[in-house]
Amino acid sequence: MSDDQRFGLSRTVTLPGPLRLDGGALLSPVDIAYETYGTLNADASNAILVCHALTGDQHVASEHPVTKKPGWWTKLIGPGKPIDPARHFVVCANVLGSCMGSSGPATINPATGQPWGMSFPVITIRDMVGAQALLLTHLGVERLQAVVGGSMGGMQALSWAATFPERVASAVVIASTARHSAQNIAFHEVGRQAIMADPNWRDGDYYASGEPPTAGLAVARMAAHITYLSEAGLTAKFGRKLQARESKTFGFDADFQVESYLRHQGLSFTDRFDANSYLYITRALDYFDLAEEHGGVLANAFKGAATRFCLVSFDTDWLYPTSESRAIVHALNAAGAPASFVELKSPFGHDAFLLDAPEMNRVIDGFLRAGEKK
Amino acid sequence: MSDDQRFGLSRTVTLPGPLRLDGGALLSPVDIAYETYGTLNADASNAILVCHALTGDQHVASEHPVTKKPGWWTKLIGPGKPIDPARHFVVCANVLGSCMGSSGPATINPATGQPWGMSFPVITIRDMVGAQALLLTHLGVERLQAVVGGSMGGMQALSWAATFPERVASAVVIASTARHSAQNIAFHEVGRQAIMADPNWRDGDYYASGEPPTAGLAVARMAAHITYLSEAGLTAKFGRKLQARESKTFGFDADFQVESYLRHQGLSFTDRFDANSYLYITRALDYFDLAEEHGGVLANAFKGAATRFCLVSFDTDWLYPTSESRAIVHALNAAGAPASFVELKSPFGHDAFLLDAPEMNRVIDGFLRAGEKK
Repeated sequence: MSDDQRFGLSRTVTLPGPLRLDGGALLSPVDIAYETYGTLNADASNAILVCHALTGDQHVASEHPVTKKPGWWTKLIGPGKPIDPARHFVVCANVLGSCMGSSGPATINPATGQPWGMSFPVITIRDMVGAQALLLTHLGVERLQAVVGGSMGGMQALSWAATFPERVASAVVIASTARHSAQNIAFHEVGRQAIMADPNWRDGDYYASGEPPTAGLAVARMAAHITYLSEAGLTAKFGRKLQARESKTFGFDADFQVESYLRHQGLSFTDRFDANSYLYITRALDYFDLAEEHGGVLANAFKGAATRFCLVSFDTDWLYPTSESRAIVHALNAAGAPASFVELKSPFGHDAFLLDAPEMNRVIDGFLRAGEKK
Repeated sequence: MSDDQRFGLSRTVTLPGPLRLDGGALLSPVDIAYETYGTLNADASNAILVCHALTGDQHVASEHPVTKKPGWWTKLIGPGKPIDPARHFVVCANVLGSCMGSSGPATINPATGQPWGMSFPVITIRDMVGAQALLLTHLGVERLQAVVGGSMGGMQALSWAATFPERVASAVVIASTARHSAQNIAFHEVGRQAIMADPNWRDGDYYASGEPPTAGLAVARMAAHITYLSEAGLTAKFGRKLQARESKTFGFDADFQVESYLRHQGLSFTDRFDANSYLYITRALDYFDLAEEHGGVLANAFKGAATRFCLVSFDTDWLYPTSESRAIVHALNAAGAPASFVELKSPFGHDAFLLDAPEMNRVIDGFLRAGEKK
């Protein structure tokens, strides 16, 4: 253990930057909220960067400060798990644009002394990765043993390998895609319109009002949440079961359990997330198209890379279905990059990667250990 | 042709009722807006009732009074089409709870002289059918040659056969289901919450304000619209194509064509539809479970029925997928009811039934003609 203040839980660093963003703006300074677990070894070769999804955060294996829930990926990360602080130096940073301490619309614009709101520059997945690269340099990590992520975290892992190939020995990409589809964009646009339709949104300038657009944000979360679950999973969990009543009320209360569940998902989300951040991060996701960044050919993104890749998809994930992972594997094959790929069975849809997934753990464990032997 | 004022386009009738609703209320009087095409033959044996979907209306084969678009099912109904006014007496009525002239939340409650708003009783698919039965009696149609509908129209066709088996010689059920699934309910709940979150909704009491909850209704429509299209169809039509621009704006305008399309779908919908009606009809859909109405066994709904059934599904329809039609066919088989079933190929998802579908037309034409020979 180290008394180096750079390492540990609930860290925040302000890096001077400037970070040149894909949209052209220069961001300076760059605040990054992050956590580290375990100890960086002497040759700094055991670092694993874990990248979080749309509404995730840096508390990958520590209690969430608002919800008091355990870290969001303790199924994968912890003592005796595939990513083990006893063996690995684990880093997880809140992405740029988010609302858990890293620079984003809710943070203060130093030029004005006011929250950025919608004047915060639109960011991309590659910008998130650029900020993480600054952080890793700050932490003394030149090269990652692995970058690991699910969903949007997987996009960051892909973007890492494409942007900084020399800094990534291996990449684990779970339940993800190399580009947002029309349907993906459509669902996000519904959410954005729901937020922007909320009069409390006030063009993003709601921080001083004390009245954030919770109703719009809750609707956005509800729509998105449906895409995280499989139809079969919803049927198994809720079906048409009624919520704490014997029969339909012939009214507009939440008669069905699935209604009550969705309403709860929407409302509880607003306690821990900022509506403007939701706009910015969904935009970054919709803008993501790794092939487009490389002349329209996905394989070009991985040309000459020495990175090893591990891809995992879930058969009931209809948000980023197996076909998207397969397209990435084809591109990796075309680029001559070493890649392993498995589609796992799960009834839980896209959310499967966050749940108990012993087979996923076995795959990731084997992949990481094979890299460590070299 | 007849100069009987009951027959023709843009008809409205006020029937005394009372109609006993599934929720227990007695509705009286019952306004029904409807259209008829063709001539009822001497023995009143050539009547076909066409049932519309969630946001449909009675203008099945005539110009819509607001949008000025042709009738919504002119691909199937018209001269030389499977349903032909030269041969058939076609009836299409606006469903109870809707907003095109039939009794619903936007119509006047005679007891108060004010619009019903949310004091309108919650209705069911079976209540819609009950109102149609009153209308058919008024029109002198004791027994239908056929009841035909897609989506929610298909549910009405099923409910007709289950509720008034002696009045239905044959039923055509397209892209439909015998019960709303948890996922179906979830999407509708998102839409309802979007409407109710709009401050202009005012607990449904917005008719006098002149400010209906258009923003919330538009979001509801956007979310639902995604479920009407297939992922592949959206990709083929829009993919990641940009809207009238060369490159991304790094802003929150509708950069992508699919965003622009969805926004247009949402906004234009609010010109022709009432938000409270959207609440009531989605509720009726979510409540629909034909098995539940018959002791939990779907086959019981069709026991002893002499009705012939024709079911059609589309392979890319993920709102009411083929498995739902197959479950109905199994129940019909178990009940000993004559049933034909075909799954058609289409790239267009649920909306396929409203588009040019020559195979669907052939199937329906053959089915109807086979019944006419008897």
